[in-house]
Amino acid sequence: MKRNEFQLRVNFGDTDAAGIVYYPNYFKWFDIAGHQFFRSIGLAPAKLIKEYSIILPLLDVRCTFEQPLYYDDIITIKTEVMEVNRKTIKLKHEVYREDTRTGHGYELRGWVKEENGKKFAVPIPEEVKKLLQEDGFGEQAQINPWLSA
Amino acid sequence: MKRNEFQLRVNFGDTDAAGIVYYPNYFKWFDIAGHQFFRSIGLAPAKLIKEYSIILPLLDVRCTFEQPLYYDDIITIKTEVMEVNRKTIKLKHEVYREDTRTGHGYELRGWVKEENGKKFAVPIPEEVKKLLQEDGFGEQAQINPWLSA
Amino acid sequence: MKRNEFQLRVNFGDTDAAGIVYYPNYFKWFDIAGHQFFRSIGLAPAKLIKEYSIILPLLDVRCTFEQPLYYDDIITIKTEVMEVNRKTIKLKHEVYREDTRTGHGYELRGWVKEENGKKFAVPIPEEVKKLLQEDGFGEQAQINPWLSA
Amino acid sequence: MKRNEFQLRVNFGDTDAAGIVYYPNYFKWFDIAGHQFFRSIGLAPAKLIKEYSIILPLLDVRCTFEQPLYYDDIITIKTEVMEVNRKTIKLKHEVYREDTRTGHGYELRGWVKEENGKKFAVPIPEEVKKLLQEDGFGEQAQINPWLSA
Repeated sequence: MKRNEFQLRVNFGDTDAAGIVYYPNYFKWFDIAGHQFFRSIGLAPAKLIKEYSIILPLLDVRCTFEQPLYYDDIITIKTEVMEVNRKTIKLKHEVYREDTRTGHGYELRGWVKEENGKKFAVPIPEEVKKLLQEDGFGEQAQINPWLSA
Repeated sequence: MKRNEFQLRVNFGDTDAAGIVYYPNYFKWFDIAGHQFFRSIGLAPAKLIKEYSIILPLLDVRCTFEQPLYYDDIITIKTEVMEVNRKTIKLKHEVYREDTRTGHGYELRGWVKEENGKKFAVPIPEEVKKLLQEDGFGEQAQINPWLSA
Repeated sequence: MKRNEFQLRVNFGDTDAAGIVYYPNYFKWFDIAGHQFFRSIGLAPAKLIKEYSIILPLLDVRCTFEQPLYYDDIITIKTEVMEVNRKTIKLKHEVYREDTRTGHGYELRGWVKEENGKKFAVPIPEEVKKLLQEDGFGEQAQINPWLSA
Repeated sequence: MKRNEFQLRVNFGDTDAAGIVYYPNYFKWFDIAGHQFFRSIGLAPAKLIKEYSIILPLLDVRCTFEQPLYYDDIITIKTEVMEVNRKTIKLKHEVYREDTRTGHGYELRGWVKEENGKKFAVPIPEEVKKLLQEDGFGEQAQINPWLSA
């Protein structure tokens, strides 16, 4: 299945008074990783909405926490397609500090058409399914996702 | 099982460019609801750490999204104990806008002692288990949790 | 000049690894206080955009920090009109924990019309100016802004 | 005076229902840029507290907003020392999307010693002053601050 990786630093504002990462930030990273994944395969969310009126709303999300993360930690978020269903896509996200996995979870997103102010789930096109199911990184994967549009 | 409720307003900063609530905010609310629940039964997290060296780290969390939420929506977060295990507690959280449930999930939290810089899960005391398993609201439940310490 | 007050609790997620409030949260509170102020005088931002196509974009904002804030602190945000200019409004915000002011600042907001996809500052109507310049609290001020729409 | 630059992408969660960046995020970026600046000159905040018991609390901050920012914008934050005072440092931050400046402001931070649970402002050492006042980028400036510790 298609996958992606990128790195970011734990900022001071991501921590709480316990001295570790405040857990809702994991979902902020999952969301960024999800968007980054779709960019890496040429289906940037901004392009999907503009060209195909397709949005990818969150239906279900989960995270299991294994190790605390601290200020200044450099983390790698590894994303991989878990399931490609008729009208939904499930992405697995794993967060690593070097070789230690600190947490993992998934996002289940719908494939939803927005038309005339209405939203309804539609079948994922075959070519998109095929692209999601191929092994390896996307053609637009970037070591550093921040440095180019 | 013990439960709690409180209300808050969806602020402008809770929304995103899709015009609805950005989903990681559900976990910010779950976290607030969890703290508020422990306050309502007389076990405020600040008291637990200070008097008993007990912290309640997140082990696992999940949310299923059912309906979008918008700016200015007044929501009620209903929290109820789902499971009281030997060293963990599972809280169910449901988010309502009037009679419509917009999302629901759970937080699994550990009962962890912090001593000499070390952290280790310890059995939940029997009196705490009993308190958690009783039906109804806590003695310190508040219609408006913001207006008193 | 018109003013407003409301209370909220410092949540765990508002703090950082230094054990105190992470400063960008002051601006989240200023923004909430600004929206709350306009609600209190019957000019809720949601109503302004819907009925008059008026938005109140931020032009300039400042905060001076005087004392640290901690988890569980109950704070009162006191807002007062500082200036009513031709096309802008300046609100003063002060944050108090009991009698101690912990920080203060201002928001300068424009009075901007959105029409046919364009945005342009327009003069503030005389009756709005008058309302802003009157002394005291707004008619829709609420001790607890969360508990009603 | 010493300066630094780095890039980041506007994430979906940084926007609000108006479709543009929610303004408190500018201060999240200012804070990240401030930390990144001190890292670039070899005085990472984590090192300052660990080796010298020095923290850099925010005393005053301001931002003027010039242009809206949107989802997916790649922005460059340009930071430069504005003032080196006896016990405080003022950093200027400017946010650019390509050649357009979208906002600018400053952070005034104290040079504060933490000793025996007490905090007190102390004079900035001469060698630090000299380093801050030199022109150019720091020796540890990075095109991509995320990819190394």
